[in-house]
Amino acid sequence: MGKNTTLKEELLRIAKRAQQAYRGSCALSTASKNRALRSMAKSLLENKAFILKANRLDVKQARARKLSTAFIDRLLLDDRRIQEISDSVSAVAALPDPVGKTIKSWRRPNGLLIRKVRVPLGVIAIIYEARPNVTADCAALCFKAGNAVILRGGSDAMHSNASIYQVLAGVLKQEGISQNLIQMVASADRQAVDELLKLDAYIDVVIPRGGEGLIRKVVSCSRIPVIKHYKGVCHVFVDADADLNMAENICFNAKVQRPGVCNAMESMLVHRDVAARFLPGMLKKFREAKVQIRGCPLTQRIARTGVRPATEEDYRTEYSDLILSVRVVADVQEAIDHINHYGSHHSDAIVTDERSAAQRFLKGVDSACVYVNASTRFTDGYQFGMGAEIGISTDKLHARGPMALEELTSYNYQVWGSGQVRQ
Amino acid sequence: MGKNTTLKEELLRIAKRAQQAYRGSCALSTASKNRALRSMAKSLLENKAFILKANRLDVKQARARKLSTAFIDRLLLDDRRIQEISDSVSAVAALPDPVGKTIKSWRRPNGLLIRKVRVPLGVIAIIYEARPNVTADCAALCFKAGNAVILRGGSDAMHSNASIYQVLAGVLKQEGISQNLIQMVASADRQAVDELLKLDAYIDVVIPRGGEGLIRKVVSCSRIPVIKHYKGVCHVFVDADADLNMAENICFNAKVQRPGVCNAMESMLVHRDVAARFLPGMLKKFREAKVQIRGCPLTQRIARTGVRPATEEDYRTEYSDLILSVRVVADVQEAIDHINHYGSHHSDAIVTDERSAAQRFLKGVDSACVYVNASTRFTDGYQFGMGAEIGISTDKLHARGPMALEELTSYNYQVWGSGQVRQ
Repeated sequence: MGKNTTLKEELLRIAKRAQQAYRGSCALSTASKNRALRSMAKSLLENKAFILKANRLDVKQARARKLSTAFIDRLLLDDRRIQEISDSVSAVAALPDPVGKTIKSWRRPNGLLIRKVRVPLGVIAIIYEARPNVTADCAALCFKAGNAVILRGGSDAMHSNASIYQVLAGVLKQEGISQNLIQMVASADRQAVDELLKLDAYIDVVIPRGGEGLIRKVVSCSRIPVIKHYKGVCHVFVDADADLNMAENICFNAKVQRPGVCNAMESMLVHRDVAARFLPGMLKKFREAKVQIRGCPLTQRIARTGVRPATEEDYRTEYSDLILSVRVVADVQEAIDHINHYGSHHSDAIVTDERSAAQRFLKGVDSACVYVNASTRFTDGYQFGMGAEIGISTDKLHARGPMALEELTSYNYQVWGSGQVRQ
Repeated sequence: MGKNTTLKEELLRIAKRAQQAYRGSCALSTASKNRALRSMAKSLLENKAFILKANRLDVKQARARKLSTAFIDRLLLDDRRIQEISDSVSAVAALPDPVGKTIKSWRRPNGLLIRKVRVPLGVIAIIYEARPNVTADCAALCFKAGNAVILRGGSDAMHSNASIYQVLAGVLKQEGISQNLIQMVASADRQAVDELLKLDAYIDVVIPRGGEGLIRKVVSCSRIPVIKHYKGVCHVFVDADADLNMAENICFNAKVQRPGVCNAMESMLVHRDVAARFLPGMLKKFREAKVQIRGCPLTQRIARTGVRPATEEDYRTEYSDLILSVRVVADVQEAIDHINHYGSHHSDAIVTDERSAAQRFLKGVDSACVYVNASTRFTDGYQFGMGAEIGISTDKLHARGPMALEELTSYNYQVWGSGQVRQ
């Protein structure tokens, strides 16, 4: 009881301070935000030894707890990775400031001038897992968009996160900016997340960054709106009228170029009219790249050998690995239905030379990003020209697809009158 | 157990049918949607007797349960109100269709053409209280924006809602459009709402329409994103440099013209430099209009008589009635701080001739609509030129302020390539 009360009170203090700092920060100019961000980038490099020392503690503990090599790899910092973290913060400084921009404006017949203006979202809580770079990335993006941010990283990266946070907080202090614009929940207590998610009077939005389990937990506990970045079960559909060379390049790229990311292809759909022509060469290329194939009965028959049967579960799975499910479908509509049913509404592509099939696919597929004749791997803030992203939203509310600076803002209506009253 | 299982299954069926209908409806043209809406408007008038008969049942029950006169007034339908309901549906038919519009498009250096396009949100659940007109209004707006809607009205208006729903469903059938695009939860069981709010795999957004209690309940239960329309504790701040005649007109209009609505003024703030000049005349005008005043000590002193002391609670209260709290403040900043602290982030106004004060107010007040020299009563879809609204959002995510057709849509990225793959 005593412990929980103290934790509750501490979180309430953090949330109240964040709201106050956000409200007090409306005078912060773009220039002063950018100056602070550039100082942060510099200070991260200058404090490299301090951060690496903290990181070694986390890595030591992770090894002692026998966590997986992949896990430790995500956790590990070195000179190159700290340079990358610093570069990311510099890149955010260089992005245009979305705050204060007029989205549109119009005059009403009664003379009222209505301006729809971009404003910060307010207070953002980020709940994340093992990668320490998230601390700097999220803090920089939220700060640039005029928000106050409350960071709550995974306990396995606690020392690394705290050291990065200290560097950022030091810069705010030195620049004369409220340190409460970037705060970190120090407690490793899991209860802290539950308590944080109740504070809807102070926190405007929660963004969980991590696996599906973390996101589902946040969604089921939170009274605060959540922007979700669920998994990517992405498809490429090779239509009957596809340029089969192009299709082979796109499918290969979407699967193999970086299989661990959310915009990689997990499932390939092939129109039955071209399956016999397309699949043998394509599957050979995948086999050479060590991609394991799980196919529908027709795919298995065409491949003759080396293809395991695909289950219902396979069609729903984000392998994040060199594994691919393959299914032959009757037509564009069956491809659309498959994608809407099994996919995760992230990124899906059609390869076709038939414009009407492309249009039908674009209209029918209910996903954040839908491609015609291009790899799903382009779903990314930088690739879209939006700059650094905080994630790829699979939500339909507020932000969909790459969520960059603009998506970290809200808007309001600023109305100029000359004494108008309502009749 | 048996009852709950049946209810759960029924709701799951409704939600699945809605998702399927929404996905199948992407071929619906603007013309066919508008034709259906015009038929609905006509059919509501043709079935007036049927609707009024159902409404009489609800009113009879409400009287037997000794519900308040105000409640029964909201529930009651008559010829004029059915005409208004029909007119609202016609008005939605006449609005431009937001679906399919390109929000922006750009070409990347690698040749990819990216189009950000408006698409429907998907499946929308509306949970509402006693006014039967909400059934037709929400159904028409959601349908026009390409969504499937699940309606769940209050049990007190059950017969009225069901009769209106039947008329709308009849039109869909007659027009050859899936009836599952507009569905109603028939069960009066309160459990139905709880079960509905778990179906995040099928329902994309929930919009509760009603009192604060209903909204809080939905927020605390829902796994589905909620768009909230909380109360309106709206302010007008009379600055030292205000045109005091204009200020008097605006404050009077904001309080008296329609005190029961969410954009009416609940609290008036006055700069101390003009309090002695402004308040006596203003308060006299309010007294003549039977507005009860609750004031800060200085307001009481200036008024001499007839002003009750304002409590902390008063400053947070949406009276929705001819009651007003009044406070004298030291400057613009104190006004901003008061509004951000006690207000509901809905609509707030400053009356001033000093441009820098106006700018500061616009930047500092954290509300959906901020006015300079105009009444807060303009916060309304029609007044803004956006057409019929589903409510005034006090959320910062997705929709803020008047929530009309555009806010009932999402967007996706449609990307056209010519074989691009990621390097």
